[in-house]
Amino acid sequence: MTSAPTPMVAVHRVAASGPDDVSGLTRLVDSGALDPAGIVAILGKTEGNGCVNDFSRGFATQSLGLFLRDHVGAEAAAEVCLVMSGGTEGALSPHWIVFERKSAGQLSSSGSALAPSLAMGSAITPPLPPEHLGRLAQVGMVAQGVRDAMGRARINDPSAVHFVQIKCPLLTSARVAEAEARGHATTTRDTLKSMGLSRGASALGVAVALGELPLDVISETAIGTDMGLWSGRASTSSGIEIMGHEILVLGMSPDWTGPLAIDHAVMADAADVEPVRAALDRLGLGQPGQLDAAARGRVRTVLAKAEASRTGTVRGLRHTMLDDSDISATRHARAFVAGVLAGATGMTDLFVSGGAEHQGPDGGGPVAIIVERA
Amino acid sequence: MTSAPTPMVAVHRVAASGPDDVSGLTRLVDSGALDPAGIVAILGKTEGNGCVNDFSRGFATQSLGLFLRDHVGAEAAAEVCLVMSGGTEGALSPHWIVFERKSAGQLSSSGSALAPSLAMGSAITPPLPPEHLGRLAQVGMVAQGVRDAMGRARINDPSAVHFVQIKCPLLTSARVAEAEARGHATTTRDTLKSMGLSRGASALGVAVALGELPLDVISETAIGTDMGLWSGRASTSSGIEIMGHEILVLGMSPDWTGPLAIDHAVMADAADVEPVRAALDRLGLGQPGQLDAAARGRVRTVLAKAEASRTGTVRGLRHTMLDDSDISATRHARAFVAGVLAGATGMTDLFVSGGAEHQGPDGGGPVAIIVERA
Amino acid sequence: MTSAPTPMVAVHRVAASGPDDVSGLTRLVDSGALDPAGIVAILGKTEGNGCVNDFSRGFATQSLGLFLRDHVGAEAAAEVCLVMSGGTEGALSPHWIVFERKSAGQLSSSGSALAPSLAMGSAITPPLPPEHLGRLAQVGMVAQGVRDAMGRARINDPSAVHFVQIKCPLLTSARVAEAEARGHATTTRDTLKSMGLSRGASALGVAVALGELPLDVISETAIGTDMGLWSGRASTSSGIEIMGHEILVLGMSPDWTGPLAIDHAVMADAADVEPVRAALDRLGLGQPGQLDAAARGRVRTVLAKAEASRTGTVRGLRHTMLDDSDISATRHARAFVAGVLAGATGMTDLFVSGGAEHQGPDGGGPVAIIVERA
Amino acid sequence: MTSAPTPMVAVHRVAASGPDDVSGLTRLVDSGALDPAGIVAILGKTEGNGCVNDFSRGFATQSLGLFLRDHVGAEAAAEVCLVMSGGTEGALSPHWIVFERKSAGQLSSSGSALAPSLAMGSAITPPLPPEHLGRLAQVGMVAQGVRDAMGRARINDPSAVHFVQIKCPLLTSARVAEAEARGHATTTRDTLKSMGLSRGASALGVAVALGELPLDVISETAIGTDMGLWSGRASTSSGIEIMGHEILVLGMSPDWTGPLAIDHAVMADAADVEPVRAALDRLGLGQPGQLDAAARGRVRTVLAKAEASRTGTVRGLRHTMLDDSDISATRHARAFVAGVLAGATGMTDLFVSGGAEHQGPDGGGPVAIIVERA
Repeated sequence: MTSAPTPMVAVHRVAASGPDDVSGLTRLVDSGALDPAGIVAILGKTEGNGCVNDFSRGFATQSLGLFLRDHVGAEAAAEVCLVMSGGTEGALSPHWIVFERKSAGQLSSSGSALAPSLAMGSAITPPLPPEHLGRLAQVGMVAQGVRDAMGRARINDPSAVHFVQIKCPLLTSARVAEAEARGHATTTRDTLKSMGLSRGASALGVAVALGELPLDVISETAIGTDMGLWSGRASTSSGIEIMGHEILVLGMSPDWTGPLAIDHAVMADAADVEPVRAALDRLGLGQPGQLDAAARGRVRTVLAKAEASRTGTVRGLRHTMLDDSDISATRHARAFVAGVLAGATGMTDLFVSGGAEHQGPDGGGPVAIIVERA
Repeated sequence: MTSAPTPMVAVHRVAASGPDDVSGLTRLVDSGALDPAGIVAILGKTEGNGCVNDFSRGFATQSLGLFLRDHVGAEAAAEVCLVMSGGTEGALSPHWIVFERKSAGQLSSSGSALAPSLAMGSAITPPLPPEHLGRLAQVGMVAQGVRDAMGRARINDPSAVHFVQIKCPLLTSARVAEAEARGHATTTRDTLKSMGLSRGASALGVAVALGELPLDVISETAIGTDMGLWSGRASTSSGIEIMGHEILVLGMSPDWTGPLAIDHAVMADAADVEPVRAALDRLGLGQPGQLDAAARGRVRTVLAKAEASRTGTVRGLRHTMLDDSDISATRHARAFVAGVLAGATGMTDLFVSGGAEHQGPDGGGPVAIIVERA
Repeated sequence: MTSAPTPMVAVHRVAASGPDDVSGLTRLVDSGALDPAGIVAILGKTEGNGCVNDFSRGFATQSLGLFLRDHVGAEAAAEVCLVMSGGTEGALSPHWIVFERKSAGQLSSSGSALAPSLAMGSAITPPLPPEHLGRLAQVGMVAQGVRDAMGRARINDPSAVHFVQIKCPLLTSARVAEAEARGHATTTRDTLKSMGLSRGASALGVAVALGELPLDVISETAIGTDMGLWSGRASTSSGIEIMGHEILVLGMSPDWTGPLAIDHAVMADAADVEPVRAALDRLGLGQPGQLDAAARGRVRTVLAKAEASRTGTVRGLRHTMLDDSDISATRHARAFVAGVLAGATGMTDLFVSGGAEHQGPDGGGPVAIIVERA
Repeated sequence: MTSAPTPMVAVHRVAASGPDDVSGLTRLVDSGALDPAGIVAILGKTEGNGCVNDFSRGFATQSLGLFLRDHVGAEAAAEVCLVMSGGTEGALSPHWIVFERKSAGQLSSSGSALAPSLAMGSAITPPLPPEHLGRLAQVGMVAQGVRDAMGRARINDPSAVHFVQIKCPLLTSARVAEAEARGHATTTRDTLKSMGLSRGASALGVAVALGELPLDVISETAIGTDMGLWSGRASTSSGIEIMGHEILVLGMSPDWTGPLAIDHAVMADAADVEPVRAALDRLGLGQPGQLDAAARGRVRTVLAKAEASRTGTVRGLRHTMLDDSDISATRHARAFVAGVLAGATGMTDLFVSGGAEHQGPDGGGPVAIIVERA
């Protein structure tokens, strides 16, 4: 036994009655089930449209910030990684996922000393110069950040990393102008396009860090274009409130303890549930059909990316998601993939997010599952 | 061999590139695979919003009408039951489903003489007086129409009926005024509400005809209100172009032949896939996960109803479908249930429709599957 | 000259770059142009959908609350009336309107001693029992609140009142259940319907207080139904965050000073601009055609209600606003009326809100204009 | 009096109860008011979303085709120019505008011999090779077509042309592939983008033909990019059903007779109503505010283009149209501009269309008005 206590991850999945509803988090803290000082990251599936004018995300971020400041003070609150993903289409249920780092010097009754166990590490990169967004420089910066986070997670083997959640920046007119004033052209002037390029470059950074792709196969022009290049374990999200990147690595490490385990799958298309069932099986939850209530009770979270395939088809049959001027394609994709995953798990509080550039193959996406082992 | 040839049903599932694309139907006719004179019904999953201002339905109806008139003349064309269901949310693929009645006096190489086999019968009721819409009188009229259609389908045992597709009328300001001029008040003056009440009353008519509910448990006020009353085999759809009801009964009968069989399931909620898997199993397509390609190739069609549960929850977890002012709840529900069924079947050309009043329990709905037996 | 300083109203119209952007308010305070202690009310035209799932309103309310607490402390902040109206359709520009009460014991260089001048008064009613919502009891409570606010505004003559802004409560499942537990049935169980009934009853309360309608012509069943009953000066808005009513009365009083004046018009339908032009004329801004830049510079705010006429027509021609399942009718109406008013004024930072039950005739609505006199 | 009868234009504005409602046209024909053989063009403001998946346009086109075939036979029906513009946001009322060519050898009681009078001419260009779409070659082809149409309209002076309505092609995957197979790259592979480029190039073709812009200021890269280049009299619309261009020129010519006259204005931004009022004044309908009923009765049609300014502002104030992921910017713009024009005219059956690339300045657009002179 090391002198330092063995760390473990606790994952709390908490229902939210609105983007500003932190009452569930408050109850966990008051009951002693959650130590706010141990909060490393909070993911939120909020109920806005998940697209450009989604105010549920900023409202949630502000509300979580007030909650954290009340409990741990402004400085520590600023350290917590907040990733709000909008869009609870179909039967998706709005909720928070709190990642808490605990110490387990000795075994608790609810824990176990099985190793490897779920491990996590985070990193924050320096600010990204606007002219690097969507370019190889961003890929490189993110790859380094992922390596740093892996270090803190004490994960040496890239194949033991199962999910990397990244919040990345975007371009505003002001940032574009600032770069141009220094003589540098940005890769685009369009905020919405910059979000996709930033997500994509960040995903490729994950792929490089995890050895999924060698850096030299990624050209500047491939970013945002060559959908044959992708990471099977990245989930990236772009926001205006960040100038660098916040990186959260989740994987398995013998240096962590606790009952939780993580695995991942890659959906090849929007209906490709078999890889997800295989991942559940590797985690000890293999069943024909939908998980029963007992199995469902052991799932801590499901994190997935969804998108509408650019080909306009799924298994050769035309879809209409990209041609619907009334509903954004990402909203369609989230609702549908949520149904596919709900069919497999019986759950509706799933963290299904859009914006899957270079995250899984075109039309598919990575899915990570965290369970409490028997 | 009987003196009259034994009837059989052929079901053709045909992709559509738009609401007016009948080219797939034309190809089937030209190749001899489909005899237009045998067409009894055409269902269409068209790509409008599936709500009030959905012009894909009328456009499809007009286009199919022109196709039918070209092939069988105006009089026979008017006999064909056309049911257009709008809304191809998520990855749903727009398509037609043609129900063709064939004769099989002798066995063809692709058919078989297994009985019972898929059977169908249709009926058209007289016009429904506007003041009867949404009331017990409509329930009674529809129940009689279902019995007539069962007779033509030569199905004696109500439990052998697996799906009843009904197109029912609605109220317009003009029809309301006409009834009031005769001294009768209609159950509502709102077109959209009248559509739901008409669908609901028609579903209860199916329930009565099939013995799912005794008529005396249905009160006038329960229609549209008591969601504890429902049919597990009705699929109803309201339209402006009809004054009575068009009824299509699908079931199993030893008086029909052919390789096709039908069964049904009732989803208790939007994620309830197990009954669907059980129905696939009864049809000889039971598999632990998603149907493989060979099994998928034997599915002729999947017909399902989807809706957003009025409780605002699915398995106790809040959904946001009823509170989304940007996207109608029926669109959310179709996308999600399509995902659930796609996860089970691997198919996206599924006939998932909304408007499920009294069709399955609140938040759930009937699902019928037609397969070609091995 | 009275011993007490003569009050005056300052109205500040401030652009917002997002629902949480209070920087413009901060700049006004830092420059000395706005004394936060004098803030009586802040109206916000925020950029959500203005319907049920509009999070821009809550986000704005929380952000303004933080701003006010920083400047005047929690207790005084709670006294400020905040009315957020979502929906900036068409070219509408998101902005805040701050109503500040100042003292003008002596004439300032920018003020003038012309009386009557713009006057304002506010009142907060007790909580409304849920079973009173949408009923005559609410009408009566609001009428009393309006009289109280008129008293504080020192407006004795109801005809001198030109605009009454009311924030009113709504029903939630919890509040319905609480009333039923006490043996009282609420007028509806549907949150969305309760919002319309609350707005309508509040508007009728204004009509009663201002003598526009005698109380005895308003029956319980007329509320929400008889669109022939309306106030030409009410603007009501329903929210979850309030249990009673916040009432802001704006009018003219010789007991107030300052350069501002208010008048109002009633649009008979969505295109009825002539009454608005007549009001501008009475305020000294009468021009053929659109206001020129000089005139525009003297307009402090335009407050209007918009709605889609229930008849489905405007001047006998069919509109499609009520049949559009993709866009809520209130969004359509706001965009269109914003265009009508922009054509008259040349302004896009107009406070155009929806939910106009009993506020102006069906399809029309009240419009108030505050200007700085020459 | 010339040996050939003097031509005149009749303009019929007809309400439509749905995209397939031709009953108003039938009534005009049956009453003798409209000779179907004289129909040159039918414009339709249909009630779909006006964007990619708008089926009201195809439904209307098919319905009008059936109407025309019934009356004039297939060959003559194919000669009629049909331009369907989707989107009746705000209070816009769906309607048809029929342009009929009549002969007036002798003066009828309802006509007059004032010259110049409204004149029209049409032309159909050859098919546009896909690789020319969005390029100077398309600009040139359209310019030639406009000159041809001007010739048929007997308009020699380009300044006498007040409106040119063009239907132009788009690119489909198939057409892109066909061009690439011949070794030519298309300007884009995206259908939606190709529509904008085709509209823009067509508008520039009008500008060249009318002498608004010299051809040499238009570079290949300026098309779709340099919004400083525009025509003040073009209205272009892209559709899948056409491979070339259909061009309708409207102007004034002494070689035509009849009571109708046309003039035009250019709105500099979405609220710029003064040029429209000035055009009404030149047409003898100048009034200080909204047109009164008598004046309104003399307006035959108002044809306008609307768009959301790319700057994100209107007169320096931020608009949210380009950032609304729930409602397309073109829908917002149509609703708002419809309000501006309704404020000026009191009419809601206005032909306001979107897709205004190079048609008027950024955020503005051309407006043409046809009136019956006193």
